[in-house]
Amino acid sequence: MEMHQDPTVTDSDKYKVVFENEKVRVLEYKDKPGDKTTLHHHPNSVMCFLSSFKRQIATNGKTVTIDGKEGVVTWLKAQDHIGENIGDTDTHVLLVELKESGNDDQQDQGVLGPEKIV
Amino acid sequence: MEMHQDPTVTDSDKYKVVFENEKVRVLEYKDKPGDKTTLHHHPNSVMCFLSSFKRQIATNGKTVTIDGKEGVVTWLKAQDHIGENIGDTDTHVLLVELKESGNDDQQDQGVLGPEKIV
Repeated sequence: MEMHQDPTVTDSDKYKVVFENEKVRVLEYKDKPGDKTTLHHHPNSVMCFLSSFKRQIATNGKTVTIDGKEGVVTWLKAQDHIGENIGDTDTHVLLVELKESGNDDQQDQGVLGPEKIV
Repeated sequence: MEMHQDPTVTDSDKYKVVFENEKVRVLEYKDKPGDKTTLHHHPNSVMCFLSSFKRQIATNGKTVTIDGKEGVVTWLKAQDHIGENIGDTDTHVLLVELKESGNDDQQDQGVLGPEKIV
């Protein structure tokens, strides 16, 4: 399995570490309409949408569109992807990455985007 | 050790479950100036401050004051407490509770309030 890079490395203009201890690392993601990330990796993470936005998430030729609504909290299963802001509002998201063992398993290679976006 | 109650039970008007799976439970907390909770328990949790607020956190005769700033992400070690909004703005906080084993240990009985509030 190819493992892609930490988003704080690939897209350091958009991803910032806002808290870290031995249990979790918390990232803040911010972008503007038209912005696109490079391919990067996420472990299992809680996602908190702090703005409403429209994004396209892509990997291996597959794409999903996310209509994010401010206030939604959901789950991002471990995955590699590219994200692109295809709406007309800024994206603002917190990702709480869990460090417990086994949290980076990608049993389901088909998973793309967050679990629940309503 | 006496174990106090789940805040979604003691203060169901202020604490709502906004997401839950086998790894985490995420609570949203909202209150207004003058509001006070009853005594309740938190496991180790990530706290995300979604508003700026001033609160007093109390337990066993000890009190700490928190000057919360919107955007701060910090850590709340497992603890029992009563919270009171002593400022003039609403409190709005997300708490990401971790379910991993050992996450509810209260080795340090002296801990009160979040770890880092700057």
